Amino acid sequence: MKEVVAIIRPEKLEEVKNALEEVGCHGMTVTEVKGRGRQLGITESYRGRDYRIDLLPKTKIEIVVNDEDLDKVVDTIVKSAQTGDIGDGKIFISGVEEVVRIRTGESGKKAV
Amino acid sequence: MKEVVAIIRPEKLEEVKNALEEVGCHGMTVTEVKGRGRQLGITESYRGRDYRIDLLPKTKIEIVVNDEDLDKVVDTIVKSAQTGDIGDGKIFISGVEEVVRIRTGESGKKAV
Amino acid sequence: MKEVVAIIRPEKLEEVKNALEEVGCHGMTVTEVKGRGRQLGITESYRGRDYRIDLLPKTKIEIVVNDEDLDKVVDTIVKSAQTGDIGDGKIFISGVEEVVRIRTGESGKKAV
Ligand SMILES: Nc1ncnc2c1ncn2[C@@H]1O[C@H](COP(=O)(O)OP(=O)(O)OP(=O)(O)O)[C@@H](O)[C@H]1O
Ligand SMILES: Nc1ncnc2c1ncn2[C@@H]1O[C@H](COP(=O)(O)OP(=O)(O)OP(=O)(O)O)[C@@H](O)[C@H]1O
Ligand SMILES: Nc1ncnc2c1ncn2[C@@H]1O[C@H](COP(=O)(O)OP(=O)(O)OP(=O)(O)O)[C@@H](O)[C@H]1O
Ligand SMILES: [Mg+2]
Ligand SMILES: [Mg+2]
Ligand SMILES: [Mg+2]
Repeated sequence: MKEVVAIIRPEKLEEVKNALEEVGCHGMTVTEVKGRGRQLGITESYRGRDYRIDLLPKTKIEIVVNDEDLDKVVDTIVKSAQTGDIGDGKIFISGVEEVVRIRTGESGKKAV
Repeated sequence: MKEVVAIIRPEKLEEVKNALEEVGCHGMTVTEVKGRGRQLGITESYRGRDYRIDLLPKTKIEIVVNDEDLDKVVDTIVKSAQTGDIGDGKIFISGVEEVVRIRTGESGKKAV
Repeated sequence: MKEVVAIIRPEKLEEVKNALEEVGCHGMTVTEVKGRGRQLGITESYRGRDYRIDLLPKTKIEIVVNDEDLDKVVDTIVKSAQTGDIGDGKIFISGVEEVVRIRTGESGKKAV
C-alpha cells in the first residue's frame, strides 16, 4: 500500500476531488495547512491576488491506495491541480505497511 | 519505530485518548481534518444527524511507538473508536526511521 | 528522499522558519495541531502560562529533503526550537519514495 500526500491550491480542491471520484478513488483525508516552496521573497498568486511568499494557505490531501492504483491517482491529481503558475503544489509518495478498517477490524488490501 | 495514524469520529477522541492512557501510551498529535471513505452519495451519521457523504469532519491522531507497543496501541484504538456504523474510521501504519527529542537531543527508542 | 516532521512550540515557528531559511531550506508545510508527550497530570508552559498537560497547542512542520540535507535540517530544527523545558517537541524522520512537482510534472531529487 502507498500513501499519496498532495499539497495543492485550496481553490483546486473541488476539481481534484471530482477528478478522483471519476477514476473511482473515494477515500481521502483533507487538512488546511500553510506552506512555502522554493521561491522566497517573490510573489505567488492566491485567490487572484499576489502575495510575497512566506507561508500561504494550501490544502493537503492524503490518500492511501493499493499499489496498482498509485499511478492513476498521481496522474489524476497532477492533471486536475495544475494551473502552470508557481505554487501549484507537490505530491509525496511513501510506503504504508498496514491498513485497518475500524468498523470491522479487517486489514490489508480490502481495508484500503 | 512505527507511526500509527488513526482517522476517527471527533466525538470518539476523549474515549480513545483515555483508553490509550490506560495502556501507558501518552505521546500523540491530534489534527482536525475532513474526510470521506468508500461510500459516496449515501448518508453517514455525524453528531447524531445524517449527512450525505462528501467531506465530513474527522479527527486524526498520530502516534509514534516502539515496535513492541504497536499491536497494543492499534487494538486499543480499534476497540475504543468503534461504533459499528459506517464512518468509524481507518488506521494506517508505516515505518519511522528516527526520532529525536528536541529538549535533550536524544534519539532512538528512548526518545519515542 | 526523507520526510522530517517536527512538532514544536507554536511560539518557536518564526525562529525555526528563519533558521531553516538561512541554511537554504525553503520548502515546508505547516499545520496547527494539539499534542501531548510523556508527561500527564503535571504542568507544561504555553505562552508563559502553566497548564496541566492534556492536549496543548503545537505546530507541526513537514519538510521533504534530499538525503544529503537531512542532518543539516534536523540539527537546525533542534537548535532553533530548543528552550530546555519539557514540551520542546519531537522530530520524526521517515523515507519518501517519490516527489512530483505539480506545475511541471517533474519528479525525483530535482522536484524536492
Ligand atoms: N520540500 C517540501 N517539503 C514540504 N512541503 C513542501 C515542500 N515543497 C513544497 N511544499 C509544499 O507544497 C506547497 C506548494 O509548493 P510549490 O508548488 O510552490 O513548490 P515548488 O517546488 O516551489 O514548485 P513551483 O516552482 O512550481 O512553485 C508549499 O506551499 C508547501 O506547502
Ligand atoms: N483510502 C483512504 N485514504 C485516506 N484517508 C482515508 C481513506 N479511507 C478512509 N479515510 C479517512 O478515514 C475516514 C473514515 O473512513 P471510513 O470509516 O468511512 O472508511 P470506509 O473504508 O468507508 O469504512 P466504512 O465502510 O466502515 O465506512 C474518512 O473520512 C477519511 O478521512
Ligand atoms: N510518541 C509521540 N507520537 C506522536 N506525537 C508525539 C509523541 N511524543 C510527542 N509528540 C508530540 O510532540 C509534542 C511535544 O512533545 P514533548 O516535547 O512533550 O515530548 P516528550 O517526549 O514528553 O519530551 P519532554 O520530556 O522534553 O517533554 C506533543 O505535544 C505531541 O504533539
Ligand atoms: Mg513554489
Ligand atoms: Mg465509510
Ligand atoms: Mg513532554
